[in-house]
Amino acid sequence: MKLSVLKIPLPKIDISKINITQHRRRNNPGEVPGTFFINETALPSKIFVYSYKEDHLEELAANDMADAINFTKNHRGYTHWIDVKGLGSQSVLDFIQKEFDVNPLVMEDIVHTHQRPKNEEYDHFMFVVSRMLELDKGLQLKNEQLSFLLFKDTLISFQEDYDDVLDPVRNRLRKNVNGNIRVLGPSYMLYALMDTVIDHYFTIINRLGDELEIVEDHLYQKPRKQLMYRIQGVKKLMITMRRGSWPERDKLNELLKSTNPLINEEVKLFLRDAYDHSIQIIDLIESMRETATSLLDLYLSLMSNKMNEVMKTLTIISAIFIPLTFIAGIYGMNFAYQDPKTGEILKDNMPELYMHNGYMYVMILMLLIAIAQIWYFARKGWFRD
Amino acid sequence: MKLSVLKIPLPKIDISKINITQHRRRNNPGEVPGTFFINETALPSKIFVYSYKEDHLEELAANDMADAINFTKNHRGYTHWIDVKGLGSQSVLDFIQKEFDVNPLVMEDIVHTHQRPKNEEYDHFMFVVSRMLELDKGLQLKNEQLSFLLFKDTLISFQEDYDDVLDPVRNRLRKNVNGNIRVLGPSYMLYALMDTVIDHYFTIINRLGDELEIVEDHLYQKPRKQLMYRIQGVKKLMITMRRGSWPERDKLNELLKSTNPLINEEVKLFLRDAYDHSIQIIDLIESMRETATSLLDLYLSLMSNKMNEVMKTLTIISAIFIPLTFIAGIYGMNFAYQDPKTGEILKDNMPELYMHNGYMYVMILMLLIAIAQIWYFARKGWFRD
Amino acid sequence: MKLSVLKIPLPKIDISKINITQHRRRNNPGEVPGTFFINETALPSKIFVYSYKEDHLEELAANDMADAINFTKNHRGYTHWIDVKGLGSQSVLDFIQKEFDVNPLVMEDIVHTHQRPKNEEYDHFMFVVSRMLELDKGLQLKNEQLSFLLFKDTLISFQEDYDDVLDPVRNRLRKNVNGNIRVLGPSYMLYALMDTVIDHYFTIINRLGDELEIVEDHLYQKPRKQLMYRIQGVKKLMITMRRGSWPERDKLNELLKSTNPLINEEVKLFLRDAYDHSIQIIDLIESMRETATSLLDLYLSLMSNKMNEVMKTLTIISAIFIPLTFIAGIYGMNFAYQDPKTGEILKDNMPELYMHNGYMYVMILMLLIAIAQIWYFARKGWFRD
Amino acid sequence: MKLSVLKIPLPKIDISKINITQHRRRNNPGEVPGTFFINETALPSKIFVYSYKEDHLEELAANDMADAINFTKNHRGYTHWIDVKGLGSQSVLDFIQKEFDVNPLVMEDIVHTHQRPKNEEYDHFMFVVSRMLELDKGLQLKNEQLSFLLFKDTLISFQEDYDDVLDPVRNRLRKNVNGNIRVLGPSYMLYALMDTVIDHYFTIINRLGDELEIVEDHLYQKPRKQLMYRIQGVKKLMITMRRGSWPERDKLNELLKSTNPLINEEVKLFLRDAYDHSIQIIDLIESMRETATSLLDLYLSLMSNKMNEVMKTLTIISAIFIPLTFIAGIYGMNFAYQDPKTGEILKDNMPELYMHNGYMYVMILMLLIAIAQIWYFARKGWFRD
Amino acid sequence: MKLSVLKIPLPKIDISKINITQHRRRNNPGEVPGTFFINETALPSKIFVYSYKEDHLEELAANDMADAINFTKNHRGYTHWIDVKGLGSQSVLDFIQKEFDVNPLVMEDIVHTHQRPKNEEYDHFMFVVSRMLELDKGLQLKNEQLSFLLFKDTLISFQEDYDDVLDPVRNRLRKNVNGNIRVLGPSYMLYALMDTVIDHYFTIINRLGDELEIVEDHLYQKPRKQLMYRIQGVKKLMITMRRGSWPERDKLNELLKSTNPLINEEVKLFLRDAYDHSIQIIDLIESMRETATSLLDLYLSLMSNKMNEVMKTLTIISAIFIPLTFIAGIYGMNFAYQDPKTGEILKDNMPELYMHNGYMYVMILMLLIAIAQIWYFARKGWFRD
Repeated sequence: MKLSVLKIPLPKIDISKINITQHRRRNNPGEVPGTFFINETALPSKIFVYSYKEDHLEELAANDMADAINFTKNHRGYTHWIDVKGLGSQSVLDFIQKEFDVNPLVMEDIVHTHQRPKNEEYDHFMFVVSRMLELDKGLQLKNEQLSFLLFKDTLISFQEDYDDVLDPVRNRLRKNVNGNIRVLGPSYMLYALMDTVIDHYFTIINRLGDELEIVEDHLYQKPRKQLMYRIQGVKKLMITMRRGSWPERDKLNELLKSTNPLINEEVKLFLRDAYDHSIQIIDLIESMRETATSLLDLYLSLMSNKMNEVMKTLTIISAIFIPLTFIAGIYGMNFAYQDPKTGEILKDNMPELYMHNGYMYVMILMLLIAIAQIWYFARKGWFRD
Repeated sequence: MKLSVLKIPLPKIDISKINITQHRRRNNPGEVPGTFFINETALPSKIFVYSYKEDHLEELAANDMADAINFTKNHRGYTHWIDVKGLGSQSVLDFIQKEFDVNPLVMEDIVHTHQRPKNEEYDHFMFVVSRMLELDKGLQLKNEQLSFLLFKDTLISFQEDYDDVLDPVRNRLRKNVNGNIRVLGPSYMLYALMDTVIDHYFTIINRLGDELEIVEDHLYQKPRKQLMYRIQGVKKLMITMRRGSWPERDKLNELLKSTNPLINEEVKLFLRDAYDHSIQIIDLIESMRETATSLLDLYLSLMSNKMNEVMKTLTIISAIFIPLTFIAGIYGMNFAYQDPKTGEILKDNMPELYMHNGYMYVMILMLLIAIAQIWYFARKGWFRD
Repeated sequence: MKLSVLKIPLPKIDISKINITQHRRRNNPGEVPGTFFINETALPSKIFVYSYKEDHLEELAANDMADAINFTKNHRGYTHWIDVKGLGSQSVLDFIQKEFDVNPLVMEDIVHTHQRPKNEEYDHFMFVVSRMLELDKGLQLKNEQLSFLLFKDTLISFQEDYDDVLDPVRNRLRKNVNGNIRVLGPSYMLYALMDTVIDHYFTIINRLGDELEIVEDHLYQKPRKQLMYRIQGVKKLMITMRRGSWPERDKLNELLKSTNPLINEEVKLFLRDAYDHSIQIIDLIESMRETATSLLDLYLSLMSNKMNEVMKTLTIISAIFIPLTFIAGIYGMNFAYQDPKTGEILKDNMPELYMHNGYMYVMILMLLIAIAQIWYFARKGWFRD
Repeated sequence: MKLSVLKIPLPKIDISKINITQHRRRNNPGEVPGTFFINETALPSKIFVYSYKEDHLEELAANDMADAINFTKNHRGYTHWIDVKGLGSQSVLDFIQKEFDVNPLVMEDIVHTHQRPKNEEYDHFMFVVSRMLELDKGLQLKNEQLSFLLFKDTLISFQEDYDDVLDPVRNRLRKNVNGNIRVLGPSYMLYALMDTVIDHYFTIINRLGDELEIVEDHLYQKPRKQLMYRIQGVKKLMITMRRGSWPERDKLNELLKSTNPLINEEVKLFLRDAYDHSIQIIDLIESMRETATSLLDLYLSLMSNKMNEVMKTLTIISAIFIPLTFIAGIYGMNFAYQDPKTGEILKDNMPELYMHNGYMYVMILMLLIAIAQIWYFARKGWFRD
Repeated sequence: MKLSVLKIPLPKIDISKINITQHRRRNNPGEVPGTFFINETALPSKIFVYSYKEDHLEELAANDMADAINFTKNHRGYTHWIDVKGLGSQSVLDFIQKEFDVNPLVMEDIVHTHQRPKNEEYDHFMFVVSRMLELDKGLQLKNEQLSFLLFKDTLISFQEDYDDVLDPVRNRLRKNVNGNIRVLGPSYMLYALMDTVIDHYFTIINRLGDELEIVEDHLYQKPRKQLMYRIQGVKKLMITMRRGSWPERDKLNELLKSTNPLINEEVKLFLRDAYDHSIQIIDLIESMRETATSLLDLYLSLMSNKMNEVMKTLTIISAIFIPLTFIAGIYGMNFAYQDPKTGEILKDNMPELYMHNGYMYVMILMLLIAIAQIWYFARKGWFRD
């Protein structure tokens, strides 16, 4: 009964944990726009500076923005990537806002980490938002905002958390593989980071695709409520990923078409590649949503089949035995053979009971009735399928 | 059995009260366009005037429009926000129409409070409509029209009711936080009011999102009709909110692209922010609609599961006991051992009844039948899941 | 049990009468285009002429088109509205075609009253089609074509029936309320008539909205097949109204953007208002379609709940009594105490029957079984909700 | 029980015959484009030539294309319509290709009769495809390709079959009704033929509309599987018709906007009329699809109602009689009055059996139980609706 | 019972094998873009060179790219098609990249065979991707990437596998049928290969269409779970084909509109034909998706009908026999005729048992009850349909 397909065990997941920490706007309606109040749960900021030119890379880990700025000023002619992890330090953000002359509305969007992917151009910088998704083993999706400020020589990135998926870029930067990364300036670094984030979507989609495939195999074997919960869980994740992917594509398209000199022309070719990836992602998500929906339909059909089977079992057993029980009931009646008062023989009262072989005849009758019914149900195909 | 999730109690809501007072056109078909007949249930108008410049704010509460106009005329060089609450005073509206030379069709739209959010430009003023939504504890949605007339120095706002969600703006105006509000003229005030209204949508959406999450947790615990009613209630609210949000976005987009000098260029940046918010709202509403729909599907699946379980219980019990009862019925038949007339022994009539241990054998037979059936159902997996 | 909401009685409607006389093309395929054959069921034409200028109005009721034309010729400098009711008089239509030099294809469209709302511009006139809807008490929708020919001084309107919804316009024309109607020429009259027709859509929508609300209240009280029929009826009407509303909007938009001098520039402002109304109508129809669909879903969920409840009742009663009946059946068996042939005591045959209090013990056993089952079902929550 | 509506009998249709001969591409993948291999089932070509000018018409029926060409050459200054019925004669098609210098890709499209309606312009001719639909009595749809080659003086039409729906055009041509047909050249003939084909769509739609109405009436009377099959059949036809109608509209729109001199300017007005018809057809098809879908929903609701009713019947009967049978079972138990060994009176064993009126009391008890249950079910409304 | 339609046997397919090897991105997120790591499962490359001019064709099969390039260099003035089968040889790909100066991002896309159909133009070449689909007997879809590099004189194609569907093109090239293929240069060869691939889609669609038709016939005969699985399988394939077809159409449209001199103008006409085919494919796929969906609906309706039938069987049998069994139970009660203690006659205890013909009367009563019920069910139509 256990087919080979079931050798892939259904990993145990607490479905109630498949939950996307829904991002909520945290400032109150009517607040002064451009104010950013630091969320009390935000982590204190850690600052990592990477200053590099073609043949050289300097790194700094700081807790104080002033140190970081000094570090970059000491490396004139270098390209700088300032990676700010944790958005809990008001002083760091204030420093950046003043030092780089950033519009307060932008700072607000960096801190209120519920923005859709977008791209805004200002006089001397660009503001870009990506959504960094990660999936842990329990199908729990972490949906973090990754914001960028792109200046002439400097890229500043902002993350909510200390963990990220960006290590491959750091490695490439350190190993200086394939030249481009240290040569094409901060817009290439922006591309490299965004592309890494998008590439990670494929990992998540593959993971969910595997989940759906396992669930499907189990569904065909045996439809269970648990499986339906899991499909619902995947669908829920799909809704979130979809909300992120469409604006991601639009953002990349805008960047591609932008004539802003902050975007190196040579980087456009790479952006086109990233744009292609974003379309593939949308495509895969839509296909998987369709697949998830038809799995749910399949589940419902199978449930309905199962119900049918249950009903047929009940009906067959009842239909066979209820009439037989009735016959037995007949011959269990106590109609008297003799009038007890007069002693007169009441010869029409159940003479079968006093026949030779009456019992045998009744048993044979019952058997025939049962056989007839079984034959009827068989002809109707109730025993097949 | 009660999981921790159920510690969040399901708040009691009378679902039949989840009802949006559907706005109806109140004038009769074929009426002269541009006439505005005051609805008899409309509240008498109260007028609040805010005249301000960078370093000064004067307020006036009046019942008479003439007083208000005089007040603004006494404050030349100030920016004026005239807040009209209640649309029941014909004289107030007539006065405004004549004093500011407003097209009667516009006055009609202000009074017939069923307009979609929109933006109309006229020679010397703009007419803007927002929908102000509020949700009370019983999930009752109040859907009020907030109309604006934007002139060079003056913004007039019209509300249906005395309550509103605009106090944060009044506070900012009084406290003069962050400068802009008293400096950027009536178009900034228009922005500030509209943005506050939109921001309130987020509060409502979060509220409904919480509702859906609680309902989902309870659904997984125990699907109940009451939960389905509540999802239907949220869906109903979503339909209304959606009807308001799409034109809201279009309106803000038009304002953004408008070249009308009544809109201060510096305010455009803020309008872009508000436009972003309107897109986020649409986005959230669509996601929640999808979520609500899949919760309904979940409810139906769970109901179908429950039915299946009920049917299985019935079938197992019937299938086991009906045949046993039949056997008991057999041995309850009264076939005679002896022909009462002749006294002949009818040895084929139910000899089992006269066997040593006949009773025992029958009981064992019944037990075996029951065990066989239980084994069969167990193998079919009817006792699991 | 009867809540206050049920005080609104469900009005009796014969659902089979909710039927839209589907308009059919009456000419045969391949016929010469531009021929108009009068439908034999068409009513004979009645002609009403309204000739007016700012301070004067003359009316004429005629059966003969020649009279009508003479009447208008006698009133040079007046604006004329010729209202043709009933399309059954070939002579009237021929006269109009020749007198006003109308393309035969247009005359064909006037007579074949199945046109979608549309707007066609010709050299010296415009041809406009509206759909005039009316709802009678039995939710029967009358879907009449109202065609217009707009000339420089003259507006000719064509109706299928003698009744219409246009009396408010006639009253305004006679009373000369608010000036515009007699001053702005035939294009204003066109607007006034079209707007009155559209305004009547709101009346119908409100009526259907009330219907849905009453049905919803009754649904929550008690789902019945009759209610489902009514929702289906409203949906059916919605399909028809929607078919009319979308092209109505397109038509008004075209008129708004038209640069044809036949449309008075001052009328454009009013057309924008009518255009707004048409959008509101589409909006309301779409919302109501969604509402009707979720009411049907609600009905199905409630039916499924009801079925569940029926099944639970059956299962509880069967599950309790079938085993008990089996036990009673056991002790109704006739296993002999004594071998009738040998008189030997068969002491293992149902000794319970001969025990002191055997009956009592069995009754107590049965009671315990019943209590155990009731406890089990209660724990599963079958008695709640 | 039989309402008047059922007087319209449900015409007997073999649903399995509602089948559209799906057009298949017959050439093999990778074949040389522009080759046309004659399908072996194609009919041999018959050629009909109509050469006409305003006051004269000559007809010829030929089997040989050379004859036809000669005939047209003998009638210089005439307009020619060459109607080729049956696509099975390679020589005829080759002759046309060479004589009129037609691109082989076009000839391929004429022979492979699975093209969508389309319009292709070449240097000296236009290639137009229509789909000619016919519905026989058994709701069998014949979906034939009608291709046109439009030259300066000549229109060639190609049909798959000898039957067509074009006789009305032939009659108008012969009777020369209303002048245009013989005067406006081959592009008017093209219009006339296409319009006749489109007009025939209305006939089919009306036929299917009637079918749906009859089915609906029967559904309300008594939902049956047969009715569901018929709705599915209509839906199937709708899918085919829709596939033809959308490109038909696009084709007509292209023709309307074409500046090709082959299309007579005076014919454009007629094409606009045909374009209008194509929009009406799309509109009707979409409405009917919606109607068919809601009829299927209605069917499912009614089935679910019926199931409910069946279940209620079962539950009521079981719920009433199972407990009563149990009681009867109790008093059918054989607990002994006397210990057969000792003769001791077991006075607690079923003393009811020996009471005066014990039987009466039990019968009254049973009656009360039945009445209580009936009252309970009645209160729950199980006997209503 | 077996209709002729069932003579077409349902081919046995293991549904769990209807599985599209989902293409996965194989490189890790954050990898250097433009690197192509050869998948370890990729086949070693085989190279086939076709050098041809109008009257001559030379072929070469090589394993080494250098040989292939030499071969083409020895045939100056010829057109070259280099067919690379298997993407497992790094050296071959590196050689091509350097020899033809191809952007590394393009090489990456060739090796990562999960690209959507697309068309990218570079300075001196075009990069085109098609998806080559093949369906084996078990409805297993092989979804291979076919990439093209189009240069001035040379077309290079890349396939994942040694098998393909391109033999018809090779045959035409060898036989030089119809001239064009050797004359119109590499862009015609590109067209010919792409068109062959697309033409193969029709074969697959026809195959799936047949499958759906067979399944439908079987469904009407007898709905079975297996049939539902097969419809699901076809739907799954449809999702994949659709994902390939839409971008295929866009790609062909771009090529059509491209002004790149690499595309021969004379080839455009053929590309238009291929574009037409791609639209027909999309059209067929959408129709088949609709058909598959309505077959699933049909399956569910039929299942619901079947359940109804099962329930009716159960209800009829139970409803008839349960009351009869109750009556038999009544007369099986042991109410005593005589008080055993006093010998008093208890004349009200079941006097029926001692009546003349009591048994007969009861049997007749039972018969009447059964007849009444059967009549009732017949009137309700439970025995029909």
